[in-house]
Amino acid sequence: MKIRVIHGPNLNTLGSRETAIYGRLTLTDINLSLVELGRSLGAEVTYFQSNGEGQLIDHIHSLPGEADGVVINAGAYTHTSVGIRDALLAVRIPFVEVHLSNVFAREPFRHASYLSDRAVGVVVGFGPDSYVLGLRGMVDFLRMQGAGGVSPA
Amino acid sequence: MKIRVIHGPNLNTLGSRETAIYGRLTLTDINLSLVELGRSLGAEVTYFQSNGEGQLIDHIHSLPGEADGVVINAGAYTHTSVGIRDALLAVRIPFVEVHLSNVFAREPFRHASYLSDRAVGVVVGFGPDSYVLGLRGMVDFLRMQGAGGVSPA
Amino acid sequence: MKIRVIHGPNLNTLGSRETAIYGRLTLTDINLSLVELGRSLGAEVTYFQSNGEGQLIDHIHSLPGEADGVVINAGAYTHTSVGIRDALLAVRIPFVEVHLSNVFAREPFRHASYLSDRAVGVVVGFGPDSYVLGLRGMVDFLRMQGAGGVSPA
Amino acid sequence: MKIRVIHGPNLNTLGSRETAIYGRLTLTDINLSLVELGRSLGAEVTYFQSNGEGQLIDHIHSLPGEADGVVINAGAYTHTSVGIRDALLAVRIPFVEVHLSNVFAREPFRHASYLSDRAVGVVVGFGPDSYVLGLRGMVDFLRMQGAGGVSPA
Amino acid sequence: MKIRVIHGPNLNTLGSRETAIYGRLTLTDINLSLVELGRSLGAEVTYFQSNGEGQLIDHIHSLPGEADGVVINAGAYTHTSVGIRDALLAVRIPFVEVHLSNVFAREPFRHASYLSDRAVGVVVGFGPDSYVLGLRGMVDFLRMQGAGGVSPA
Amino acid sequence: MKIRVIHGPNLNTLGSRETAIYGRLTLTDINLSLVELGRSLGAEVTYFQSNGEGQLIDHIHSLPGEADGVVINAGAYTHTSVGIRDALLAVRIPFVEVHLSNVFAREPFRHASYLSDRAVGVVVGFGPDSYVLGLRGMVDFLRMQGAGGVSPA
Amino acid sequence: MKIRVIHGPNLNTLGSRETAIYGRLTLTDINLSLVELGRSLGAEVTYFQSNGEGQLIDHIHSLPGEADGVVINAGAYTHTSVGIRDALLAVRIPFVEVHLSNVFAREPFRHASYLSDRAVGVVVGFGPDSYVLGLRGMVDFLRMQGAGGVSPA
Amino acid sequence: MKIRVIHGPNLNTLGSRETAIYGRLTLTDINLSLVELGRSLGAEVTYFQSNGEGQLIDHIHSLPGEADGVVINAGAYTHTSVGIRDALLAVRIPFVEVHLSNVFAREPFRHASYLSDRAVGVVVGFGPDSYVLGLRGMVDFLRMQGAGGVSPA
Amino acid sequence: MKIRVIHGPNLNTLGSRETAIYGRLTLTDINLSLVELGRSLGAEVTYFQSNGEGQLIDHIHSLPGEADGVVINAGAYTHTSVGIRDALLAVRIPFVEVHLSNVFAREPFRHASYLSDRAVGVVVGFGPDSYVLGLRGMVDFLRMQGAGGVSPA
Amino acid sequence: MKIRVIHGPNLNTLGSRETAIYGRLTLTDINLSLVELGRSLGAEVTYFQSNGEGQLIDHIHSLPGEADGVVINAGAYTHTSVGIRDALLAVRIPFVEVHLSNVFAREPFRHASYLSDRAVGVVVGFGPDSYVLGLRGMVDFLRMQGAGGVSPA
Amino acid sequence: MKIRVIHGPNLNTLGSRETAIYGRLTLTDINLSLVELGRSLGAEVTYFQSNGEGQLIDHIHSLPGEADGVVINAGAYTHTSVGIRDALLAVRIPFVEVHLSNVFAREPFRHASYLSDRAVGVVVGFGPDSYVLGLRGMVDFLRMQGAGGVSPA
Amino acid sequence: MKIRVIHGPNLNTLGSRETAIYGRLTLTDINLSLVELGRSLGAEVTYFQSNGEGQLIDHIHSLPGEADGVVINAGAYTHTSVGIRDALLAVRIPFVEVHLSNVFAREPFRHASYLSDRAVGVVVGFGPDSYVLGLRGMVDFLRMQGAGGVSPA
Repeated sequence: MKIRVIHGPNLNTLGSRETAIYGRLTLTDINLSLVELGRSLGAEVTYFQSNGEGQLIDHIHSLPGEADGVVINAGAYTHTSVGIRDALLAVRIPFVEVHLSNVFAREPFRHASYLSDRAVGVVVGFGPDSYVLGLRGMVDFLRMQGAGGVSPA
Repeated sequence: MKIRVIHGPNLNTLGSRETAIYGRLTLTDINLSLVELGRSLGAEVTYFQSNGEGQLIDHIHSLPGEADGVVINAGAYTHTSVGIRDALLAVRIPFVEVHLSNVFAREPFRHASYLSDRAVGVVVGFGPDSYVLGLRGMVDFLRMQGAGGVSPA
Repeated sequence: MKIRVIHGPNLNTLGSRETAIYGRLTLTDINLSLVELGRSLGAEVTYFQSNGEGQLIDHIHSLPGEADGVVINAGAYTHTSVGIRDALLAVRIPFVEVHLSNVFAREPFRHASYLSDRAVGVVVGFGPDSYVLGLRGMVDFLRMQGAGGVSPA
Repeated sequence: MKIRVIHGPNLNTLGSRETAIYGRLTLTDINLSLVELGRSLGAEVTYFQSNGEGQLIDHIHSLPGEADGVVINAGAYTHTSVGIRDALLAVRIPFVEVHLSNVFAREPFRHASYLSDRAVGVVVGFGPDSYVLGLRGMVDFLRMQGAGGVSPA
Repeated sequence: MKIRVIHGPNLNTLGSRETAIYGRLTLTDINLSLVELGRSLGAEVTYFQSNGEGQLIDHIHSLPGEADGVVINAGAYTHTSVGIRDALLAVRIPFVEVHLSNVFAREPFRHASYLSDRAVGVVVGFGPDSYVLGLRGMVDFLRMQGAGGVSPA
Repeated sequence: MKIRVIHGPNLNTLGSRETAIYGRLTLTDINLSLVELGRSLGAEVTYFQSNGEGQLIDHIHSLPGEADGVVINAGAYTHTSVGIRDALLAVRIPFVEVHLSNVFAREPFRHASYLSDRAVGVVVGFGPDSYVLGLRGMVDFLRMQGAGGVSPA
Repeated sequence: MKIRVIHGPNLNTLGSRETAIYGRLTLTDINLSLVELGRSLGAEVTYFQSNGEGQLIDHIHSLPGEADGVVINAGAYTHTSVGIRDALLAVRIPFVEVHLSNVFAREPFRHASYLSDRAVGVVVGFGPDSYVLGLRGMVDFLRMQGAGGVSPA
Repeated sequence: MKIRVIHGPNLNTLGSRETAIYGRLTLTDINLSLVELGRSLGAEVTYFQSNGEGQLIDHIHSLPGEADGVVINAGAYTHTSVGIRDALLAVRIPFVEVHLSNVFAREPFRHASYLSDRAVGVVVGFGPDSYVLGLRGMVDFLRMQGAGGVSPA
Repeated sequence: MKIRVIHGPNLNTLGSRETAIYGRLTLTDINLSLVELGRSLGAEVTYFQSNGEGQLIDHIHSLPGEADGVVINAGAYTHTSVGIRDALLAVRIPFVEVHLSNVFAREPFRHASYLSDRAVGVVVGFGPDSYVLGLRGMVDFLRMQGAGGVSPA
Repeated sequence: MKIRVIHGPNLNTLGSRETAIYGRLTLTDINLSLVELGRSLGAEVTYFQSNGEGQLIDHIHSLPGEADGVVINAGAYTHTSVGIRDALLAVRIPFVEVHLSNVFAREPFRHASYLSDRAVGVVVGFGPDSYVLGLRGMVDFLRMQGAGGVSPA
Repeated sequence: MKIRVIHGPNLNTLGSRETAIYGRLTLTDINLSLVELGRSLGAEVTYFQSNGEGQLIDHIHSLPGEADGVVINAGAYTHTSVGIRDALLAVRIPFVEVHLSNVFAREPFRHASYLSDRAVGVVVGFGPDSYVLGLRGMVDFLRMQGAGGVSPA
Repeated sequence: MKIRVIHGPNLNTLGSRETAIYGRLTLTDINLSLVELGRSLGAEVTYFQSNGEGQLIDHIHSLPGEADGVVINAGAYTHTSVGIRDALLAVRIPFVEVHLSNVFAREPFRHASYLSDRAVGVVVGFGPDSYVLGLRGMVDFLRMQGAGGVSPA
């Protein structure tokens, strides 16, 4: 089981940026802990970050064969990118949407997502733990599918 | 660490009701697995279900001293009850909002929640696994708070 | 053929309340005439009224095995209760929505219904005759289904 | 007691058109069954169909003295014709609005009607039975009026 | 100077229809008084009425060479017909829009007009006098144009 | 019969201001021609202009006993002043609303009026002729009322 | 003169709940002070609190003969309950709407009320003094009615 | 304790204007009764009325040192004046907003207020008694503040 | 292969009407060139024009057996006619929607179409060439279908 | 080169009013520094302040011949006054719109301006420096125009 | 005559991606057939694809001198990119907008385009044939312009 | 004091592109004059331009230590990029937003900005002078901050 964690724009600044909102862990800290968690769950976790919408789309196009599931925090592109939505649907790999902060407690333009309605699931507001929960959710989802189980929606 | 799982209207029909959407586990199955998971995480999990808005409010009023955190799937009341929002804010106990189905893929009136902006975090769409992830998120949150950590938002 | 007629909030005051709008028949008068009409149509009609959203949901949960069809005037909850919608969908019993007054001629918030799009049919504005027409419509619908007929929509 | 049943645009194609939605009865079948039902209820039922908004308005202008009540399925004009509304109000003949399909379960532009707020009552979604119920409702309404009864709204 | 007065749907019922709103004059009364007023102002007034949108469009197409100006009460089509707007623009004959009743004091859907922004002027609410004022306004407008005057907008 | 013509803000600049839109007549030219027209119609016409909302309200308060009808071009205050609406309703003197330019062909914020729904009638877009038509409409209205006639709406 | 004070959901937590917003008085403190004030004004004040919408409706149905006026703080149900509105209209007892906090300074969903347009009056934002002012307003209103005075609106 | 009562546009016509809505008391009657009530409550009440938005702003600027609290019925400016809002905030004197009629039962544009969210409290719909209740509320508020009490919101 | 080209209201005026927008070709010019193009593509092209919504619906009803595909420029009815939409769906003949002018560059009410979502394809803004392209698109579509190809959407 | 600086309502309170938002400079301080800056730039700067909408309109009418450009902070009237917009357009003197505070970071009703779309330019949020920048912008604009340069938009 | 075909994000996946919606042809297949068609029409066709908004803008900047016309399928950027709109307007090269799928039959956010109102024409829904028709339309347009013809809008 | 001027998409075409709107200066002309102005004001001005959203975000991330303030014309991304907003907030460097053209006089989608509410100030519509004024505003702001002054908002 291979899972790609994808981080969108500005997430490379984690740990230095607005720590009151996003906490003090760096993206590397998060990635390493996810790799480790993945290992304990029997999943190979890899990761990618870019600030460019086109580069994120390019990257998603490269996933078939490389990933069975995606955990994505598309950051600001969550609210503005139809292209990333289209890329995820094009490659037909199930994905979980995660957000560090509680987007519903922030500006109204962060309440809408171009990804949510096509995601397996959405995890919002737990800080870095959102990635952890999202990864667990994706692993459980893929396992259930593999076992011929019924997908949740 | 004591955590109360609260189920709103119609969740008592789980397992018989619209299984294509909600899966075949009963509410009892879910509750028991959460108790067990709680035990393994060092948390005492208890649960409550009601179809009545007023009864859910009454129950939330009884929580101070009984629960350190709440995992709530308010079901249909998520979208219509200001009273449950007010009750949760009144007792000042942190809560995680969970949903079995992907509410963002369903009718537009299910896209808005009276709870999300005040929740610690939100977990949507993983089927019964939403409760599992929500419980893990709540335990992590309370542990981080207890350790003097920074809350995620 | 068993049909349950369900009356929502404030319908217990019929006959005393705002008679210029709702007429002078009491709810008992209406119920008895529906039982009689049911008998003449070969259907056993029973009835239930409650002012509580949770109690109405509880009652709907009790219907499987007890009713083949529902005629429901959800009153004010028509416009505010996602929970009753969910309960009716959960038990998968076909229902007809009725209203005494012409809701389209009243306040704008009465123009929207959480039930209509999932109802077999809707009857609005005929006073107590709305129940009569709704009951006939439900009986015809169940008979057509029983005869392998095509449902209307 | 004379009742005119009026059918708007495209209803002449009934029975051939989209039978999954509208059923297999032709308009003639429906008209004949309404005449028969009218006879059994002591009402003379006549009918008219046109695809033209102006012709429908012309026809409505001819009704005074010819009809005591109208049962109208204005079809697509329900949602776009202020002119038919005005014609019905001009002749001051009470009317019942009916629809074969459940308009509330279809495209949003079918949820609004230029007729409903001025109708005696509305019957939606029962297939051809909508006409039957609408005719019964109109007969009951006229009878109650004739008996000095209170109109429902 | 030739002026065509055009009456839209339901205006043929004037004098019998809703006299509390529209007064007791018949359309013939109005037409004759406009012919007479036209004569006194040096304008030949002719008139046309139809309940059909297509027929009104056909008629407008026949106007070039027959009319120098139009006074139109498009009735219900004011609010729903892009086709009449297009016809008036196609023939490039200036027109004045008139209404008997005060449309701004009636249902919200009567507050918008597909004609107003392209009309020379609009006269609303004076009962049959709206036609009189509209005719005067059109005569003045054409006279001012003929005299090389500046059109008002 | 005494009629007060009231001009709102910026109308004192008529003749110099944006002549392409409003024409070259000054406000004095218009006032004098209205006095003359009034005389020919048997009505005493007086006039008032102010750029101040409060002064216009003050002036309207002074009208009882001084005017039987009002012809008002409230200019920009048409779209922003609830106070002038309230003043006109307070003194209970019938008023006609006029506009020089075709407000429906200009910015969207000019399409709404706080006066129209309570006016006897509205005349829009004829340039200075709007006042002439409005004055005629008001005189006709008062005469019809005096003759026990039915007001138009 | 008998006045019933009705408290909606979560008001039983007053004094412990969010004291920065709602103050430190308990509901019992408020009730007792209202009884005392009632006594000094010649009115018998009684009270009721429930968190259940249905129970509040049931209670309102019991009021005829028991209360001449109602002072109601419907709390969260103010913004979501058509049923309580309908109950108050059904029993035809005049009511005053009160709120402790300034609802207009809080979340947008608290700006709309299903009660206000049918209330005698509304008092918002004075803390517990809102009840005091509301009770005074209701007493004055009933006294003025009893004296044949004109009701305020 | 000094309290200034401020009346906005058209309130000088009270007693003559639309008495069915606003009652028969004149503004002088109201002012005198408020002075008297103030005296009994230990507050010096003075008053001001103007129809001009600018004059009301000027007056509010003169209040520091002259008033400890304001009771304001801004009339029509409630719904249109950002300037009066800004003036009240600039002088930082607490104010209570009052309305004679029930603005929520009138035109939609009267449902919004530029003052409410910054007011100490709002009193609506009690006729002249709204001023009385508003004055009491302001006195209580100032007294509570003076006593080091907690302000209501 | 038989294709019917249908022209809606005002298109009979092509060539004389607003030539700056619609060009100088007459409808006959266009029809003849489409017949010729059709011949070269192996398709029999016929055509119909009407200004009447009802007549267009009547005509569409006559198409089964007469046409394998439709190219329709519904003109103004594009934006207002649910009836033409329903007729096209009723006869189940695939259709292409075309417009001479760029509707997206014109008034906002021309941006919405009751036909587009059910069309095979839409061609907008190429002047008479829109018909040419639309005809080609329809021929290609039918050929692909005939060849067992996959339809584009 | 003569430039008039115009200050709208409440700006006379600058320096005393809400200094956290608007700073501690008085309007006189600002005016004097603008005169001085104007002198250094070769422009004669004069100024005017009023709280009255009508007085501001009157003043703008007096500008032709007195000013080549206007720098205006219309304060609250920015968001509510069509009259000031009309006055500025009537006198055809170019104007720059300035605001002390960042209106886009404040209440939503401050985000819309009746002036911006017709201004030469807009300067927002720099405190008193907004006037300085606006004056520089106006001087540059007039100089560029005088030099036959191209205006920016 | 040189024409550049530009493909936006995700179109590089054509043929593999969601073939039920977009068909089985690859982008290379489409490009080659367009080159060939161009050749037969006397136009040199070249092409470009990128998933990056900035790269698409860069590419458009390179077009002057390289292309006389553009056929663009901006994919997801159609609905979100003002930048591509601005680039196309900046280089002032006429463009045709094409879409493979029927965007009007998909999610609402695909119904709006930042390109349509400035395009020569729009072709939607014909699958790969949309490019063919768009190319033909562009060639015809350029030819007509070259011949001094009138552009369609 | 170091200030980075950032130019978004399409600004590299300045001087060639739509000169009627944007003027004839090239971006290099503007940059050089800003460097020179900076020097005279004691600030080191550097600059950057990109058409890519991701590249602009990357660049902003590189600013800490390199710039004390930013003057940004984000061009089209102003209206569509949450990512650039987030990047500017992440690096916590104050920024001024500038626009060459008057965005409020152009298409509605240019009236909203994702940057304005978090900018120090906004300068709109002065052509290249917008940059000059924005740079002056930023220098003044930084100087005032350095002097311990109060920031404007």
